[in-house]
Amino acid sequence: MEDDSNHFSKPETPNTMKAEAEAEERDPESNSSLSEPLLKRNRTLSSNPLALVGATVSHIESLDYEINENDLFKHDWRSRSKVQVLQYIFLKWTLAFLVGLLTGLIATLINLAIENIAGYKFLAIVGFIKEERYLSGLVFFTGVNFVLTLVAAVLCVCFAPTAAGPGIPEIKAYLNGVDTPDMFGATTLLVKIVGSIGAVSAGLDLGKEGPLVHIGSCIASLLGQGGPDNYRLKWRWLRYFNNDRDRRDIITAGCSSGVCAAFRSPVGGVLFALEEVATWWRSALLWRTFFSTAVVVVVLRAFIQICNSGNCGLFGTGGLIIFDVSDVKVSYQAMDIIPVIIIGIIGGLLGSLYNHLLHKILWLYNLINQKGKLHKLLLALSVSLFTSVCQYCLPFLAQCKACDPSFPEVCPTNDRSGNFKQFNCPDGYYNDLATLLLTTNDDAVRNIFSSNTPSEFQYTSILIFFTLYCILGLFTFGIAVPSGLFLPIILMGSGYGRLLSMLLGSYTNLDQGLYAVLGAASLMAGSMRMTVSVCVIFLELTNNLLLLPMTMIVLLIAKTVGDSFNPSIYEIILELKGLPFLDANPEPWMRNLTVGELANAKSPAVTLSGVEKVSRIVDVLKNTTHNAFPIVDQDVLVPGTVVTGATELHGLILRAHLVQALKKKWFLAEKRRTEDWEVQEKFNWVELSERELKIEQVAVTHDKMEMYMDLHPLTNTTPYTVVESMSVAKAMVFFRQVGLRHMLIVPKYQGAGVPAVVGILTRQDLRAYNILTVFPHLATHKEQQKHK
Amino acid sequence: MEDDSNHFSKPETPNTMKAEAEAEERDPESNSSLSEPLLKRNRTLSSNPLALVGATVSHIESLDYEINENDLFKHDWRSRSKVQVLQYIFLKWTLAFLVGLLTGLIATLINLAIENIAGYKFLAIVGFIKEERYLSGLVFFTGVNFVLTLVAAVLCVCFAPTAAGPGIPEIKAYLNGVDTPDMFGATTLLVKIVGSIGAVSAGLDLGKEGPLVHIGSCIASLLGQGGPDNYRLKWRWLRYFNNDRDRRDIITAGCSSGVCAAFRSPVGGVLFALEEVATWWRSALLWRTFFSTAVVVVVLRAFIQICNSGNCGLFGTGGLIIFDVSDVKVSYQAMDIIPVIIIGIIGGLLGSLYNHLLHKILWLYNLINQKGKLHKLLLALSVSLFTSVCQYCLPFLAQCKACDPSFPEVCPTNDRSGNFKQFNCPDGYYNDLATLLLTTNDDAVRNIFSSNTPSEFQYTSILIFFTLYCILGLFTFGIAVPSGLFLPIILMGSGYGRLLSMLLGSYTNLDQGLYAVLGAASLMAGSMRMTVSVCVIFLELTNNLLLLPMTMIVLLIAKTVGDSFNPSIYEIILELKGLPFLDANPEPWMRNLTVGELANAKSPAVTLSGVEKVSRIVDVLKNTTHNAFPIVDQDVLVPGTVVTGATELHGLILRAHLVQALKKKWFLAEKRRTEDWEVQEKFNWVELSERELKIEQVAVTHDKMEMYMDLHPLTNTTPYTVVESMSVAKAMVFFRQVGLRHMLIVPKYQGAGVPAVVGILTRQDLRAYNILTVFPHLATHKEQQKHK
Repeated sequence: MEDDSNHFSKPETPNTMKAEAEAEERDPESNSSLSEPLLKRNRTLSSNPLALVGATVSHIESLDYEINENDLFKHDWRSRSKVQVLQYIFLKWTLAFLVGLLTGLIATLINLAIENIAGYKFLAIVGFIKEERYLSGLVFFTGVNFVLTLVAAVLCVCFAPTAAGPGIPEIKAYLNGVDTPDMFGATTLLVKIVGSIGAVSAGLDLGKEGPLVHIGSCIASLLGQGGPDNYRLKWRWLRYFNNDRDRRDIITAGCSSGVCAAFRSPVGGVLFALEEVATWWRSALLWRTFFSTAVVVVVLRAFIQICNSGNCGLFGTGGLIIFDVSDVKVSYQAMDIIPVIIIGIIGGLLGSLYNHLLHKILWLYNLINQKGKLHKLLLALSVSLFTSVCQYCLPFLAQCKACDPSFPEVCPTNDRSGNFKQFNCPDGYYNDLATLLLTTNDDAVRNIFSSNTPSEFQYTSILIFFTLYCILGLFTFGIAVPSGLFLPIILMGSGYGRLLSMLLGSYTNLDQGLYAVLGAASLMAGSMRMTVSVCVIFLELTNNLLLLPMTMIVLLIAKTVGDSFNPSIYEIILELKGLPFLDANPEPWMRNLTVGELANAKSPAVTLSGVEKVSRIVDVLKNTTHNAFPIVDQDVLVPGTVVTGATELHGLILRAHLVQALKKKWFLAEKRRTEDWEVQEKFNWVELSERELKIEQVAVTHDKMEMYMDLHPLTNTTPYTVVESMSVAKAMVFFRQVGLRHMLIVPKYQGAGVPAVVGILTRQDLRAYNILTVFPHLATHKEQQKHK
Repeated sequence: MEDDSNHFSKPETPNTMKAEAEAEERDPESNSSLSEPLLKRNRTLSSNPLALVGATVSHIESLDYEINENDLFKHDWRSRSKVQVLQYIFLKWTLAFLVGLLTGLIATLINLAIENIAGYKFLAIVGFIKEERYLSGLVFFTGVNFVLTLVAAVLCVCFAPTAAGPGIPEIKAYLNGVDTPDMFGATTLLVKIVGSIGAVSAGLDLGKEGPLVHIGSCIASLLGQGGPDNYRLKWRWLRYFNNDRDRRDIITAGCSSGVCAAFRSPVGGVLFALEEVATWWRSALLWRTFFSTAVVVVVLRAFIQICNSGNCGLFGTGGLIIFDVSDVKVSYQAMDIIPVIIIGIIGGLLGSLYNHLLHKILWLYNLINQKGKLHKLLLALSVSLFTSVCQYCLPFLAQCKACDPSFPEVCPTNDRSGNFKQFNCPDGYYNDLATLLLTTNDDAVRNIFSSNTPSEFQYTSILIFFTLYCILGLFTFGIAVPSGLFLPIILMGSGYGRLLSMLLGSYTNLDQGLYAVLGAASLMAGSMRMTVSVCVIFLELTNNLLLLPMTMIVLLIAKTVGDSFNPSIYEIILELKGLPFLDANPEPWMRNLTVGELANAKSPAVTLSGVEKVSRIVDVLKNTTHNAFPIVDQDVLVPGTVVTGATELHGLILRAHLVQALKKKWFLAEKRRTEDWEVQEKFNWVELSERELKIEQVAVTHDKMEMYMDLHPLTNTTPYTVVESMSVAKAMVFFRQVGLRHMLIVPKYQGAGVPAVVGILTRQDLRAYNILTVFPHLATHKEQQKHK
């Protein structure tokens, strides 16, 4: 067990300053010494700040879903008393309940605020119009919207850059194992709530749906860790949730609750998390997630009933898109399949075109946002100005239409919500464009979805509406305010759906409102590439099963068409943000590369002995940025055989645990292994799982440097391993399926002098981009061009 | 590379006859030589035939979901041309479409047949009753039911024993990796269709829902392999599906289609497969499965519309439970939560009690069924007689009730379906018990679900109904006819739900029909332990979102209560059948055992050299029943180092591939490795993947025995491995998550003389029961008692 016989360790010499500076630049996950030519990391992470958020993202760590089986863990509660297991289960369900409850409450709060702010704004506009003070109306409208946008943008830019955008891509990345920093903090949550209220009330072309998903996840994360970072609840029970696995589960529940709160669609919320967001899924999770969404629905229902009695100001129908067509008699013939197919194809084409253009614009916005906070603010405010002016002025272009007594609702209206706005028209007439533009986005959707009103809109009005929202949908998403993608896409889609049905005219028997719904669904499938969850969300929105077969066909076609052009919008954003997301399907060329070859391209792993000198541990921790080190014992006698002088792979030790052990000063004067009772006296797993400490914060005096540490009790003795002949494709699938942070490569050879560990792989090593920089010959021609 | 230096191989000596006889007794998956004390296998597999099916189940093989990366595979189509990939994708979708289409058509056919047979039967009874020929009616009724049961039972007993029962547990096991023999054949499919029609028309207390799921899976399996075993389509494209992974996917789609066809619930079908049946799930699968169910719904709808014009005899509303309450105004207050909670608790208690009793009765039936075909037939026929007599005679006990003009339907009726049967009552009166008993089960459910009819049923009638169906539900399921569990449970549950609501009387504002629905849901959750899928199925059945929160609460409570008593009914059946199902959660004691210890308890694995003598290969194949052998090369020079004389773990070779190579007579005169071009000349992967051949069918002449074979090209060079220090718990999770058949254990030591492979694990080795027989001290007290 002589330390020096460890012929694997190299970078003993200091050179600390330079190494640290370099370390700052590199990814902390890698385990490779500094001297060798290393796998070149994807630089996007540090040099290319988030396209939308504008924050400089620090090095992103992989989460650790592996069960850490070391000696201490075996004294863990999980393998202990029944009471503690019951505590854990009870707490899990309580948290699921609280996540649902709080998400429901906050969603109601947001809806209340938006409906009242926007409502009073529109009522004031009606006043101005009535007095024919059109210019004052414009000034008031743009002014109010300007201030609301300003509030949202300032909050996002100055306090929580991660609150900008929808947050769904980051949640998706989190559930894949990538922890974007500052994503789930209390500040982010607050800014997201207030910012979302501001941005949506300002009439910007964005929704509160995406932010609600992020809000749900924030709540879940905060509850799971017992409150915000600085004011954490020190409740003993919460220690059970101090691990990445349970946090993953609860954030999945939060995400589902958010979707449910946005659309009042409990099953859709669960399916959204399952289909679009989650990487891992268990049957038990389905059940708990469903419980959370059920709570959300009950809370939403309760508030809608309370507000029905008029105590909530202008709350109306709760700020939810409700397109209840359960009383519409849907009857369709075989021939109706043709327009349905056309909608699907157009939806797919438009959706992929939208993805393509949005990608370009986000690149452009990224350049602007990088220039500083002021630029971000200016960008947001100019989009707000443009939106307000268009929304106010364009309705003047529309011709007034006479009210038809066959309309199912009051006509014309001057109140806050409602169809058939009078605007500048004489009594008995209504302005169809104002009905769509001068209202909240939710109401606009409801109006364009309206059924049994075949003659409500004029061609030109719908065309203007569609064009405007195409432009706004492209230019609004990237600005620094909380913004969802659902609503812009629904608005665009419903626009072209309704337009199509008007063009088809008497060739179709279906209601125009249904076409609008199908158009919205097709664009969602074409852009976001979700099928089952969109279908269920629309099923729950429309409350009519008869629509289901048509919706399904539209979704399937639109997704197929879209997939043949480009990836989904969330994948595009993930790539733009440079998050190391692990895809489910490896690239074909990964079959032709073994993990052994990959490990050879990196420098060999830095290993430690089971009983190691303190000075070497401190050295290794300071001079490398690796987060785990294999523990290899030398000169071992293999039990049950006559083999001596073998090496033994004892396991893998985490950096965090090493630092904790150093801090605890768990040193031995002589080189020996510790006894079990010593271990239990000194440590427990709760302390071990505290992650925050850095090696720089731990001071080790000079005399201690010559002492020893027994690392065996802290080592995870059962790391996952692959043999070096495994192909990268298979290793990647394995890595993702089991949810690993580190994977050890063991040699396929067995003999004296063969190293016990060939290398160590992390998430970054398995990313196509990183591999291709080292093995460029593997890339196809197309990929080579892309990477240039 | 001297063969003899392979110090791992032992059983060279013949002793073939005895070994083969022993092999018959043992599980073919194990890789352990015969001489040593081996892990004692679970004998249930061979000595305890299926409780319900009554067939002697032969040795069950694990399916192979691993991608077999050998030299041949690298010339596989997957890594080849784009056209072939497109063919594959196209075929995948075509199959998904065909699965949906055929399942929909067959479901319609079954419904048509049942509704007509049962319909004319009941019309005849009405005739007898009108003429007051009560005894003739009884004889006719029992006679017809007797014959129908006879047909179903004879088919099941004589032609396809696997067609008995619901088939869902076996499908669940299949998707977990356990291939029950004869489960998905053409005979099984036909018997299941005809048997199901017979059994359901005979009025037995069983449903067509479970069988439909099995039918869907059969169709999927047959389509995927190109037809029944003996008449297989030799279409080239179908070779793509000649692997366990694609079969798994398509059977999942078939299973969902079956549920969808049973309940007309497309989303519910997908979720049922996801929640209850599938072990592995991918996002892409969600989408394709959903497509299949969408096709089913369209087919069902089309036929219902065609039959609406009266061309389908007594088809009526399509033989589906339709409880459309979308027009019922549901309003509930906070206080209604109390009865809802009560329903949930009672549902959980009754459900677990039902599971407990059914378990006992299935044991008893197992003893009867084992005695032979005649016993099976007699059992089925006596259940049929008892059912018929009860159904016919009990309604005479009920008092006639006067028709109330407030009833929403015609009263009294004498036609086939319909509520308020007149039966033996005078005009203007109806017999409420006949309404529930003398009708098809689907109609009975519809009648007891009926809303706005608070005074329809009398206490005694509902009580008789509930008691009768509790008895029938327990004693019908185990007989040798195709039988589903859904409907008996729904009948029982709706009975007690309605009873409860009548007892509550004016204390509740909810409709009695809603209580019946909630009761049915609670019992399903209490017995089958499904939540999300039941909820969605009921949502799609009732077409009313307002019920959702109540349904959710009931389901959650019922499942929680049930789980605290016993496992779900499907798990109980799986255990009774002795299927080696791998659970998601390992037992706690598995953490305290390493795979190395487990491997030591077995004899060492039989390994082969990379270039091996033919005689040894034949010997090993004949004398062992193992399905895979590690390939270990001796005396290798480790490239890039100075290490010589090492051993190299080249990979794992499958028995099937060895046999194919022997059959092809791929022998070498001298001991050398083959060149790439030689390999490609001789073999292709399509031949390799043919599995059926046995070693006994291959004759190797004596002179060939001294030749050599190069096994390298056939070897899967990237088997999954674990280090011997891995705990069994972690290894099991890994095994299940990646879907393995064999898992190699590599040593944690590295040195000259250390074996390259410590052992090999299969599904059977990781089962709790098998481990406990070898390590009894690990079991808790409770488990020890259970295993005695």
